[in-house]
Amino acid sequence: MHFPIVALVGKYHDTGIAAPLRAVAQMLRDAGREVVFEKDTATNIGVLDYPSATVEEIGQRASLAIVMGGDGTMLGVARQLAPWDVPVVGINHGRLGFITDVPIEDAGTAIAGILDGQFESETRTLLACSVIRGETTLVSALALNDVVLSRAGLGGMLEVTVQVDGLYMSKQRADGLIIATPTGSTAYALSANGPILHPSLRGLVLVPVAPQALSNRPIAIPDDCTIDITLTRSPGGRDESASVHFDMQSWSSLQEGDRVLVKRAEHTIRFLHPAGYSYFSTLRRKLHWNQISGTAID
Amino acid sequence: MHFPIVALVGKYHDTGIAAPLRAVAQMLRDAGREVVFEKDTATNIGVLDYPSATVEEIGQRASLAIVMGGDGTMLGVARQLAPWDVPVVGINHGRLGFITDVPIEDAGTAIAGILDGQFESETRTLLACSVIRGETTLVSALALNDVVLSRAGLGGMLEVTVQVDGLYMSKQRADGLIIATPTGSTAYALSANGPILHPSLRGLVLVPVAPQALSNRPIAIPDDCTIDITLTRSPGGRDESASVHFDMQSWSSLQEGDRVLVKRAEHTIRFLHPAGYSYFSTLRRKLHWNQISGTAID
Amino acid sequence: MHFPIVALVGKYHDTGIAAPLRAVAQMLRDAGREVVFEKDTATNIGVLDYPSATVEEIGQRASLAIVMGGDGTMLGVARQLAPWDVPVVGINHGRLGFITDVPIEDAGTAIAGILDGQFESETRTLLACSVIRGETTLVSALALNDVVLSRAGLGGMLEVTVQVDGLYMSKQRADGLIIATPTGSTAYALSANGPILHPSLRGLVLVPVAPQALSNRPIAIPDDCTIDITLTRSPGGRDESASVHFDMQSWSSLQEGDRVLVKRAEHTIRFLHPAGYSYFSTLRRKLHWNQISGTAID
Amino acid sequence: MHFPIVALVGKYHDTGIAAPLRAVAQMLRDAGREVVFEKDTATNIGVLDYPSATVEEIGQRASLAIVMGGDGTMLGVARQLAPWDVPVVGINHGRLGFITDVPIEDAGTAIAGILDGQFESETRTLLACSVIRGETTLVSALALNDVVLSRAGLGGMLEVTVQVDGLYMSKQRADGLIIATPTGSTAYALSANGPILHPSLRGLVLVPVAPQALSNRPIAIPDDCTIDITLTRSPGGRDESASVHFDMQSWSSLQEGDRVLVKRAEHTIRFLHPAGYSYFSTLRRKLHWNQISGTAID
Repeated sequence: MHFPIVALVGKYHDTGIAAPLRAVAQMLRDAGREVVFEKDTATNIGVLDYPSATVEEIGQRASLAIVMGGDGTMLGVARQLAPWDVPVVGINHGRLGFITDVPIEDAGTAIAGILDGQFESETRTLLACSVIRGETTLVSALALNDVVLSRAGLGGMLEVTVQVDGLYMSKQRADGLIIATPTGSTAYALSANGPILHPSLRGLVLVPVAPQALSNRPIAIPDDCTIDITLTRSPGGRDESASVHFDMQSWSSLQEGDRVLVKRAEHTIRFLHPAGYSYFSTLRRKLHWNQISGTAID
Repeated sequence: MHFPIVALVGKYHDTGIAAPLRAVAQMLRDAGREVVFEKDTATNIGVLDYPSATVEEIGQRASLAIVMGGDGTMLGVARQLAPWDVPVVGINHGRLGFITDVPIEDAGTAIAGILDGQFESETRTLLACSVIRGETTLVSALALNDVVLSRAGLGGMLEVTVQVDGLYMSKQRADGLIIATPTGSTAYALSANGPILHPSLRGLVLVPVAPQALSNRPIAIPDDCTIDITLTRSPGGRDESASVHFDMQSWSSLQEGDRVLVKRAEHTIRFLHPAGYSYFSTLRRKLHWNQISGTAID
Repeated sequence: MHFPIVALVGKYHDTGIAAPLRAVAQMLRDAGREVVFEKDTATNIGVLDYPSATVEEIGQRASLAIVMGGDGTMLGVARQLAPWDVPVVGINHGRLGFITDVPIEDAGTAIAGILDGQFESETRTLLACSVIRGETTLVSALALNDVVLSRAGLGGMLEVTVQVDGLYMSKQRADGLIIATPTGSTAYALSANGPILHPSLRGLVLVPVAPQALSNRPIAIPDDCTIDITLTRSPGGRDESASVHFDMQSWSSLQEGDRVLVKRAEHTIRFLHPAGYSYFSTLRRKLHWNQISGTAID
Repeated sequence: MHFPIVALVGKYHDTGIAAPLRAVAQMLRDAGREVVFEKDTATNIGVLDYPSATVEEIGQRASLAIVMGGDGTMLGVARQLAPWDVPVVGINHGRLGFITDVPIEDAGTAIAGILDGQFESETRTLLACSVIRGETTLVSALALNDVVLSRAGLGGMLEVTVQVDGLYMSKQRADGLIIATPTGSTAYALSANGPILHPSLRGLVLVPVAPQALSNRPIAIPDDCTIDITLTRSPGGRDESASVHFDMQSWSSLQEGDRVLVKRAEHTIRFLHPAGYSYFSTLRRKLHWNQISGTAID
C-alpha cells in the first residue's frame, strides 16, 4: 500500500481550511491510511478525533505529508521535512500557487490518484546558509526559495563582495542580492528581473535588486557551487545594519565584515504531483501566458 | 446639435462588423444625424442604403468619425483624419484595445452620450517622418504610434547615429530603434522595455531594441524636438538594407548614410471617450494590473 | 557685471577641497567679485580671510553659488537655494557627476567664462512632498532627485494605492516606489529600470522597485500632476513601518493609511554650465556609451 | 610532450595578424612542435614556409589549435573542430573577447605555459539544430553561441509554439526567440535581457526578443532537453518568411508549420586557458563591473 501514514498540515491560523482538511482526512481514513494532524493545525481547527504530532514526529513517522494553504505554508513545511525525506503534496487554498499546484476542488481526485500510485515525483533543491563573523557561525538556516541580503535601513546601498567556489566574482552595490533556487526563481527573484530556472536545472541564480551598475545582471551557476558573500560596507554606516532572509525568515544584525555562506543543502524535498502534472502549465497559469497581453495591435 | 454628420469606418475586410455597424448607423439616423460610410467599409459589408465617401471626403465634411475594429484600424483612420481635425471614437470589435476603448456592447450608450455632448476629449500627438538621401526626400509619412528603424535582414546589427535638435546624442548598435509617441508607448515600445508615457505628457521616447550596450536605455524627450537619425552602417553589408516603419507601414530601402527625420506632426488627432473615461482604467485592464500576478507568496 | 556676489560651498567634511576652493575664491576676488563662503565649508577648511554666511543668507544676498563636491552636495545646496533663485554651478571633486558636470581641472576656465556671461542656463524641477495622517501634515520636504517610498523592514512588501490628479491609477505591491524628476531619472530610478527623462521634458516618472506584477512598468506623467500615494498595508504588519525618502533624507514612521502627496515645487533651481555644455555628453560619459560594451561579436 | 602538432588559424581576411601569428609559429617551432597553418589563413597572410591544411585535416591531425582574431573567428573554428576533440586557445586580436580571452601581448607567455602543461581546460556545449518540414530535414547545423528564430521581414511578429521534451511550454509572439548556450548567454541573449549562464552550468536559456507578453521571461532549462519550436504564423503573411540563425549563419526560408529542433550536440569543444584563468575576470572586464557606473550619488 502506498503511503500508509499520511500527515495533514494546514495554513497557520487559517480556519477556512477546517472543512476541506477534514474531508481529506476522512477520505484518507476511508482508504485505510493512518492520519496524523500537525499539532498547530489540529489546535487551530479543533481536531480531537485524530492523533496529532509535531512536524519532527511527522518527519520520523509519516510516509506522506499533505499541505493545504499557500506557497508560504508549503515552504515552511518543506524546509522542516526535508531532512526526513517525507514527500509533500501541496493543495492550494486561496489562489493558485507555484508549489501548491493542486486546486482545492481537485484535492479529492488528486489525492486518490496519488494514494493509488499515480503521481509525478519531483525533487527540489534547498539552500543551506550560514552567517559567519570571524570564526563564529552566528546563525544557520535552510531556504527552499531564496537567501536574500538586503539593506535593512533607510538609505545607502548594500555593498558586498561575492566569491564563488573561492574565486572572486564581483563587488556589487545594490538594494539587495538574491540567491534563488529554481523554486525561488519564480518568487522574489522574478520581480527583480531574474530568469526562470526550470526545477530540473541543477543551478542557482544570483539576482541583484536595483543594482547601481547597469551591467550587473543575473547570473546562473551550478548548484554545487559555494557562494561566499562578504558585507563590505553596511548601508547607512555603523548604526544601520543589513539583513539576511532565508525564504521569509529574517536575521537583521549583519555587520561589516560578516560573511554569508550559501550552498546546496544536503537534503532535498520531494514534491508529488497528480499524474499529468506539467510545470509549464503552472507557469502559464501563474504568469498569464495564455492571455494575449497588452502590447498587441491587430 | 452635436456632430450633425457622422462617418462610420470598419475594420478592413472584417465582415463581422456588418450588423453592429448597421445598428450604429440606424441609431445615428434615428438621432437625426447624417450618416456616411467610408467607401471600403461600405463595399466590404455591402451598404447601399447610406451614402459612402472616401476618407478624404469624410475629413472635409464629417463632424465625427466612429471607427469599429481594433487599434490597427484606429491608427490608420486617425492618421488620415488628423489634417482635417475630425474627432474619432474607437469602438472595439474583438478584444479591448488601448485606443479602441469602447466595448462593442457599450457602443449604443457611449455614442448616445457623445451625441448628447457627454464626452471627454483627448488630443494625441502624431509624428511626421521623412527619409532623406543627400538632398532628396525619398518618403514622408505620419505615425500615431511610432517610427521604427530596424534591420531588415539576416544578421548584423543596425548602427545609427542619433542627433536631437542638432546635438549629438549617441551612436547606437541594436536590432532596432523605436521613436514612440505616448500613444505608441503602450505598443511595440513597451515590449522593448520602454516606459509608459501618459497621453498628456508632451514627450516622445526613444527605445532601443536589444541594444548591444547594456547602458543604452530608453530616453524620453520633449515632443517639440527634432530627431535626426543617420544609418551609419547597414546591417549585413551593402546587399542587406535596413527598414523604417511608420506605425505598421514599411519602407525597406534604407542605405548607409540615409537620414530619418522625426518630429511632431503639425496636426493632432482628437479622440472622444464616453464621460468618465479613464486612461488608467484602460491601462489596468490591458496590463492586467488588477490581477495579482505571478510572484506572490502568501 | 555678471554675478557680483559669489558664494562658495564645499562638500561636507571633505578637506581635500581646501586648495581648489581657495583657488576659485582668489580667482573670483581677482575678477572683482565679492566672495562669501558657506559657513560649514568655512569651518571645515578653516577659512578666516573671507566672510562666511549661512545658506539662507547666501540665498538672500548672493548672485551665484559655486558648489564643489559630488552630486549629493549639489542636491543639498540646490534644494536650499531653490526658493531664492540663486543659480548654481557644480564643480566635480572626485569622479564626474551627473549634475556636478565641471571637472575640477576645468574649474578656472569654466568659471571665467561664466563670469564673462558665457554659459548655458538650465532649469530643473523640484518636488514638494508632504506626509499626511488624517488632517495633519507630519512632514514636508523638497526633493530634486526623487521621493521614494520603501519598506523599512525585514519582510513583506510595500502596498500602496496611487492616485494621479484625483484619478485612481493603480494598487502596487513592490519593494518600493520612486517618483523621480528628470534630474533623478539618472539616479536611483535608473537602477530600478526607469527611463532617462531629458531635463527639458516637463515630466515625472513613477518607477516601481521589484514590483510583484511583471506588467507594473515605469510610467511618465506631466510634472504638473499631483500624485497621492496611500500606504494601504504596512510591510511586516503593524510593528514594521515603511519609510519615505526625499533625495537621501529619510522619514521612517509611515503607518497604514498615511498619504504621501507629491507635486512639482513652486520654485525651480537654475544650473549654469560652461558654454557648449551638452546634457547628452554627460550621459555618454557617465553611462559609458562611448565604449563598445560586452555583447559584441566581430 | 604536450601538443606535438599545433594548428594556427587567423581571422578571415585580417592581414594585421600576419606578424603576431608568424611569431607564434616560430615560437612553436622553437619549442619543437610541428606547426600547421589553416589553409585560408596561410593564403591570406602569404605563408609558404609552413605546411597548411584544411580545418578538417587539422581536426584529424592536430593536437591543439590556436586561433587569433575575435570571438566570431573562434566560434567558427570551434564549431568545425568540435567533432574532432581538438582543444582550442583563443588569442584576441583587437578588443578583448569573451572567448578569445588571451590578449595578444600575452600570447607568448600564455602559449609557453600551455605547451608546458600549465593550463585550465574548459568544456563548452554546442547546440545541434535542424529545420524540419513535414518529414524532411531541410538543414542541420551546429551552434556554439545560439540558435535564433527571427522575423525576417518588415512587419508583424514571429509566432511560435515551444515544446520542451515533448511537453507544451508556451506560445510566443515576439520579434525573435533565442536559444543560447552558456557561451552565447553573454552574446545576443544578453542584449535581449537574458541572464548570464556560467559555462559549467549544464543549462540552456530561451530568451524572447521584444515579446508581446510582458510576463514572457527568459527561462533556463537543462541542456539535455530537446526544444521543438513550430512556426505557427509567419510574420507578414505568406510572402514574408522568418529566418533561423546558427551563431551568425542564417537560413531564411522558414515557412508556417516548419519546426526547428534544438538539442545539445553530441560533441563539445574544449577551450584551454592560461593557468589562473577566471571566467569571472573576463566578465568583469567585458561588462565593466570594475567601474562604478552611472547611477551613484556620493
